[in-house]
Amino acid sequence: MSVVYDNIGELVTNDPSHGDGSPLGIIDDAAIVVDGDRIAWIGPSDHAPAVDDRVDCRKASVIPGFVDSHAHLIFAGDRSAEFAARMSGTPYDGGGIATTVSATRAAGDDKLADNLARLAAELLRSGVTTFETKSGYGLTVADERRALEIAGHVTDETTFLGAHVVPVEYRDRRDDYVNLVAGDMLAACAPRARWIDVFCDRGAFDIDESRTILEAGADAGLGLRLHASQLGPGQGIKLAVELGAASVDHCTFADDSDLEALASSSTVATLLPGAEFCTRARWPDGRRFVAAGVTIALATDCNPGTSYTTSMPFCIALAVRDMHLTPAEALRAATAGGAAALRRDDIGALAKGMRADFVRLDAPSYIHLAYRPGVPIIDTVVVGGTRMKESSNQ
Amino acid sequence: MSVVYDNIGELVTNDPSHGDGSPLGIIDDAAIVVDGDRIAWIGPSDHAPAVDDRVDCRKASVIPGFVDSHAHLIFAGDRSAEFAARMSGTPYDGGGIATTVSATRAAGDDKLADNLARLAAELLRSGVTTFETKSGYGLTVADERRALEIAGHVTDETTFLGAHVVPVEYRDRRDDYVNLVAGDMLAACAPRARWIDVFCDRGAFDIDESRTILEAGADAGLGLRLHASQLGPGQGIKLAVELGAASVDHCTFADDSDLEALASSSTVATLLPGAEFCTRARWPDGRRFVAAGVTIALATDCNPGTSYTTSMPFCIALAVRDMHLTPAEALRAATAGGAAALRRDDIGALAKGMRADFVRLDAPSYIHLAYRPGVPIIDTVVVGGTRMKESSNQ
Ligand SMILES: [Zn+2]
Ligand SMILES: [Zn+2]
Repeated sequence: MSVVYDNIGELVTNDPSHGDGSPLGIIDDAAIVVDGDRIAWIGPSDHAPAVDDRVDCRKASVIPGFVDSHAHLIFAGDRSAEFAARMSGTPYDGGGIATTVSATRAAGDDKLADNLARLAAELLRSGVTTFETKSGYGLTVADERRALEIAGHVTDETTFLGAHVVPVEYRDRRDDYVNLVAGDMLAACAPRARWIDVFCDRGAFDIDESRTILEAGADAGLGLRLHASQLGPGQGIKLAVELGAASVDHCTFADDSDLEALASSSTVATLLPGAEFCTRARWPDGRRFVAAGVTIALATDCNPGTSYTTSMPFCIALAVRDMHLTPAEALRAATAGGAAALRRDDIGALAKGMRADFVRLDAPSYIHLAYRPGVPIIDTVVVGGTRMKESSNQ
Repeated sequence: MSVVYDNIGELVTNDPSHGDGSPLGIIDDAAIVVDGDRIAWIGPSDHAPAVDDRVDCRKASVIPGFVDSHAHLIFAGDRSAEFAARMSGTPYDGGGIATTVSATRAAGDDKLADNLARLAAELLRSGVTTFETKSGYGLTVADERRALEIAGHVTDETTFLGAHVVPVEYRDRRDDYVNLVAGDMLAACAPRARWIDVFCDRGAFDIDESRTILEAGADAGLGLRLHASQLGPGQGIKLAVELGAASVDHCTFADDSDLEALASSSTVATLLPGAEFCTRARWPDGRRFVAAGVTIALATDCNPGTSYTTSMPFCIALAVRDMHLTPAEALRAATAGGAAALRRDDIGALAKGMRADFVRLDAPSYIHLAYRPGVPIIDTVVVGGTRMKESSNQ
C-alpha cells in the first residue's frame, strides 16, 4: 500500500540536487510517496501521484529521521546524585563508570531490556529513527555478550565496547584485561556486534592498547569506531584515521593536525555536545571542523554518567549555540552525518529508494530545532514507512 | 470530591518544616489529598486519609507546578531567520523587536489569541501551572490594550509593557512616547493589568524614563516589575529596589552593590537563562546571587526574538550548568521563586490550603530535570486540582 505525505511546507532531503543546491536540498511545498518501507517518489506537492492513502502535513517542515550514531543504552541504575554533586562542586566518591558496571552486572536480563526499551522509546519521541548502542557496562565475557544480545533485539547497529574502562578486578593487571577483550571476549561478542569501539583517553586505554583491540576487532570482521580526545589531547584521532575507522567520537581536544588527518580520510568526526553539557566541559569549536572539510556527525552519547539525554533537538541546539555550527550544519550532522558515521547509504537522506524514515516537525522550519530549545517540536515520526507516533499536542 | 495522590517516591514541598529542614522540604513516600482546587492534606503515604478517588504516583517524584513569572506571549510572526543569522555570524537587517511589532499590529485578535493558546499549552506541557505575560508588541494605545485583554482570558498575571521599546514612529520624539506610555496608554491599560514593567537598558529606556513610567504605574495601582542590566551594567536594579518592585529581571550584569541592594529588599532577582542561551550572551553567575542572600526566580522569558522557549526544565538545566545553581536551588527558583516574584502566597509550594498545582515527573528525583536535559520528563500536570494531561509515554 502506498501513502502520500503531502502539503509539506519545507522538506529537507539532504540531497543537494534539490532546491538551491545547498547541502540540505530543501524542496518547498513538497510531497513524499511511501511504498512499504521505502520512498517511492519525492517532489513538488502538486505533482504527487494519486495513491491509496494521504496524510496532510499542513505546511509543516519535514526532515530526515535523526541517526544517533553513539549511545550507551544497556545499563541499570542512575547516577543523578553524582551529577548533582559534580554540578554543585561538592566532592562525591561515587565511582563513576564502576557504579554503573556494578548495577548492570547485578541486574537481570529483563531489567536491562526494559531500561533499553524505555530509552529507545524516548529516542523515537525525539525523532531518532536509527540508533547505535554499545556494550561496555558488563566488562566480563558473559556480561558483554549478554548486553549485545539484548541490544540486538532493538537495533542492527550494535557495538562491542569491552574496552570502555579497565574493571576494578583487573586494576593491577591491565594487560590481562586487554588480552581478554582482544581474545575471549571479542570471540564471544563479535557474532553479536557490527562494530568494535575503544575508549582511548586519559584514564582509559592508551594508543597501543587501543590499536591492539581495534586490530583484533577488524580481524574478527567488525567495523571500527573510537572514543578519542574527550578528556585531553592525544593520538587517538590519528589512530582512527590510520585504521580506517568509520567514526572517531568526542574530538573535544582535536588539534589542526587531527582535523587535517580527518579531512583527507573517510572517518567521520562525531561531536557529542550532551557530554560537554553534562560534565561542564569545554566546547570543541564545530566551525573549525567544517572549515577544515571534516565530515561531522552529531549524536546523543546517551549514558547515565556523562550525557543522560536522548534528545537530538537538544544536541542540535547546543551544537549551534556552543559549538558554533549553523542550524543547517547541525541538522545535517544529526541526519546525514550520523548515517555516514554508521556507513549507511539507505538512511540519513530522503530520496527515491531510501528508507522512509522521516519526521514531521510542529514548526514551519527546521531552524526551530535550535530556535525553540527545550520545546518538544517533534510531531509525527515515520520509521520504515510506519507512522510510530502522533504527539499529544495535535 | 477529594482525590489522594499517593505512593509518591519523593515529594518536593518547598516547606522546610518537612524532611531534613532543607529549603525543598522533601517528604519521601508521601501523599497529597486534593479537595476542589486546594490541598487538603499532605504527609506520609501510609497515613493518608481514605477519600473518594486515588491516583497511584508509582514512586515517582512530585514537585510544585512551575511558576513562570516572565514571558512575552502576545505576538504574531516568528524570527527564526534572524536567529539563524545571529547564530551563524552573518549580518541580518531584520529589525529585531520592530519586526514583531509590525506583525502583531497587523494580526487579527483571533490570530493573537490562537498563538497565545498554543504557547500556553506548551507551558502546561512543560509543567508550568501559573504564568505571567506582558504586552509590549503593540506600542499604541489600542494595540497594548488589546494585548492585555487577550492575555486576561488566560492568566491573572498580566503586565503592561508599553515601555518595551520606543516604536519607530516616535524615534525622533521619544519624550512624547514616554508621556504617552505614562499617560493615555497607562490609563487604557491599567484596568486590564496587574503589573507594569519597563525595559530599562541600553537602547531601550533610561533610568529617568523608567522612573517616570513606573511611578505613574504605581499611582495607577499597578505592581512594579523591571527588565534591567541585561545588555550592560546600569542603575536599573537599584531603581527597582528603591521603588519596591516585586521583581527585577535579567540582572546579567549585576554588580556587588546591586546584589547588596537586592539582598536587603523584598525585590526578587529573576534570572532568564533562555535569553543568554538564545542570544549567545554571557552568563550571570547564579552562585553570587545565592551567596549574597538574594531571592531568585527562574523564568522562560518566552518571546520570539531572544528566548523562544516554553520549557522550564530546559531553563533549570541551563541554570545548573551555566549559572552554577545547584539542582535544588534551580528548582526552588522555578517554583517558590516565581511565586515570590509575583507576590503570590497561594502557589509555589505544597501545603494544606494552597492551590493544588503540582507535577508528577517521569523520574524518581527532581534532579532529573537537570540530569536529563532536553528529555520531556514532565508527566501528569495538576492545575487547581484538575489533572490537565497525561503524557503519551505512560
Ligand atoms: Zn560514549
Ligand atoms: Zn522580557
